[in-house]
Amino acid sequence: MSVIEQLLREDLRGRTAYGAPQLDVPVALNTNENSYAVPAAVVDEIVAAVAEVASGLNRYPDREFTDLRDDLAAYLSRSGTTVRPEQIWAGNGSNEVLLHLLQAFGGSGRTALGFTPAYSMHPIITATTGTSWVDGLRGVAGGGAFDLSVESAVAQAQAHDPHVVFLCSPNNPTGTALTLEVVTAVHDAAPRAVIVVDEAYAEFARPGTPSALTLLPGRPRLVVTRTMSKAFAFAGGRLGYLAADPELVDALRLVRMPYHLSSPAQAIARATLLHADAMLGTVDVIKAERDRIVTALADLGLDPVPSDANFVLFGGLRDSRATWQALLDRGVLVRDVGIAHYLRVTAGTPAETTAFLDAVAALPPDHLRPEHPEGQS
Amino acid sequence: MSVIEQLLREDLRGRTAYGAPQLDVPVALNTNENSYAVPAAVVDEIVAAVAEVASGLNRYPDREFTDLRDDLAAYLSRSGTTVRPEQIWAGNGSNEVLLHLLQAFGGSGRTALGFTPAYSMHPIITATTGTSWVDGLRGVAGGGAFDLSVESAVAQAQAHDPHVVFLCSPNNPTGTALTLEVVTAVHDAAPRAVIVVDEAYAEFARPGTPSALTLLPGRPRLVVTRTMSKAFAFAGGRLGYLAADPELVDALRLVRMPYHLSSPAQAIARATLLHADAMLGTVDVIKAERDRIVTALADLGLDPVPSDANFVLFGGLRDSRATWQALLDRGVLVRDVGIAHYLRVTAGTPAETTAFLDAVAALPPDHLRPEHPEGQS
Repeated sequence: MSVIEQLLREDLRGRTAYGAPQLDVPVALNTNENSYAVPAAVVDEIVAAVAEVASGLNRYPDREFTDLRDDLAAYLSRSGTTVRPEQIWAGNGSNEVLLHLLQAFGGSGRTALGFTPAYSMHPIITATTGTSWVDGLRGVAGGGAFDLSVESAVAQAQAHDPHVVFLCSPNNPTGTALTLEVVTAVHDAAPRAVIVVDEAYAEFARPGTPSALTLLPGRPRLVVTRTMSKAFAFAGGRLGYLAADPELVDALRLVRMPYHLSSPAQAIARATLLHADAMLGTVDVIKAERDRIVTALADLGLDPVPSDANFVLFGGLRDSRATWQALLDRGVLVRDVGIAHYLRVTAGTPAETTAFLDAVAALPPDHLRPEHPEGQS
Repeated sequence: MSVIEQLLREDLRGRTAYGAPQLDVPVALNTNENSYAVPAAVVDEIVAAVAEVASGLNRYPDREFTDLRDDLAAYLSRSGTTVRPEQIWAGNGSNEVLLHLLQAFGGSGRTALGFTPAYSMHPIITATTGTSWVDGLRGVAGGGAFDLSVESAVAQAQAHDPHVVFLCSPNNPTGTALTLEVVTAVHDAAPRAVIVVDEAYAEFARPGTPSALTLLPGRPRLVVTRTMSKAFAFAGGRLGYLAADPELVDALRLVRMPYHLSSPAQAIARATLLHADAMLGTVDVIKAERDRIVTALADLGLDPVPSDANFVLFGGLRDSRATWQALLDRGVLVRDVGIAHYLRVTAGTPAETTAFLDAVAALPPDHLRPEHPEGQS
């Protein structure tokens, strides 16, 4: 064991860092980014916002990001559920917001429960804070392999009595949203837990999918996290946020690093939120491509999972890794999320979708699992 | 106890968040900011850098901030000690870099030792990660009340056998730098510890003050942290960094949130580093003001502590809080760092220094401690 490994926290030894490959490929559909560049008008606004704060960078930023909280509250309130600024917290990506939640409400001797497969950072952030992770189960008899029923979720919450519960809706990497009934049932079944509903992909949900924002009133233990990385086409800007009870939000000030959001970060996010309609203008196109992928993959003899997000998980592969490599050899980078026989693909532009589907159609038939019909294209 | 307080980690209950008051006053000398605005030429470069990355904000940033590491290594190497890019780590402020160190090498059941008074965030970050904090002592018989001798530091390191040791040099809030002899002695006396030398104020040190960067070769447990917030006049940009052994740096990837540095953060920091000479152009003026404050406060019958930083701690006050308020009433905001009879003032522009010194000179004599001679101005 090296000197550094001996110094490292015992429970971190032997781990490898999170890391989707950052490869330079023609068609990158592996991290659920929005494939559309920021519109020119918004670029101008971003540049103007930075020009305004740049000379004052010698001063610390507003530690409480007051104006940004106002703007995020106004944005969330557009959906019809009023969210007040004091209910808002933000960080450098939703990862940091989740970290603050675990730092405040998790920690050594405490437990977080998630229902996997879900966002792979949930257990990693949990481990980072010394919190114990419990891998909850999905799968409904007679239903989808990745569905989560009220009965199953409640039974698992009661069995583990966790301090934090992650509910990912729409769920990454499987794509489907939870019903609000699952959220309220888990909330009531885990009476000492902070319930975190990770809605990173909420804006892509199919019509009629309600947000857990509507459940916040009267539930001080409920948290809804969001991000500007996906629908908002702002992954490079790193701005995640949450809505919750003001007292819960206030407690996060105990664990955040002071001045964690830089002046440019606040200014750029605000400039972008001003143009929310423009930034979200690609959502409908992306949803159409997502639905096209589901249909086309089924036609090719694969098993796509229905999706409320900007990606599709598809099964029916003999060897995920071999297919991942074969697609990469054709210039298409998708995600191997570690589920045997499945891969995940982001819905990008129509041209990217076509490139991806062409690459799948060109795969030799032995990429399909034997029990599946061979390619039908 | 409220619902939220019941949910909170037991060891965080009853704490209050870090918070220097962010007040809108004519003369703000409380957070050791650089009082000089970013020069116009650098503002232009920053704006151009953001214009270049803005349209691509739909994509995640380079998770490994490769170009920024190159630039930070080149900047540190200017001092004559070669630092390689793989020895560099960075975060949203040095607070985040320190957090990563505590997350990787501290944690529940582990101990961090610091010699207080020192940077007030050291114990807070330590507590955030569930690490136990040991308050080490300063003070040398026949020497300064805030000095740290080799013998005392070694004895305390041996007694506590910590996992992390903080050495703050120049020390905030007291101002003086440590000798390298203290650093190497503590390093050798704490064989299972990561030794963190916090050099946030290094650029302000008096001539002949060596950096612990020179000690890095052959010491894989040694870390030197730096920030762009102080001499570099970049507090609002939030860019802290460290230099250490490449394997230690690599271990921090286990605990950082992926993509923790946004594309604009990387681009803006790089644009600023390109103009290091311009950004550091105010350092000599600030050092002169610091020395002027030390001399003038002594003339006024107070007890300023010699300083290698951009601030001065001064004692001889009857009631720190009363004097803090009296100065604020005159439009001058300084820092009450919680040391009885002392306050800390940042060295700003000549005009700010004059405003501060005038405000001190105008204080009624009962602001001085009885055992001190009354104002001599």
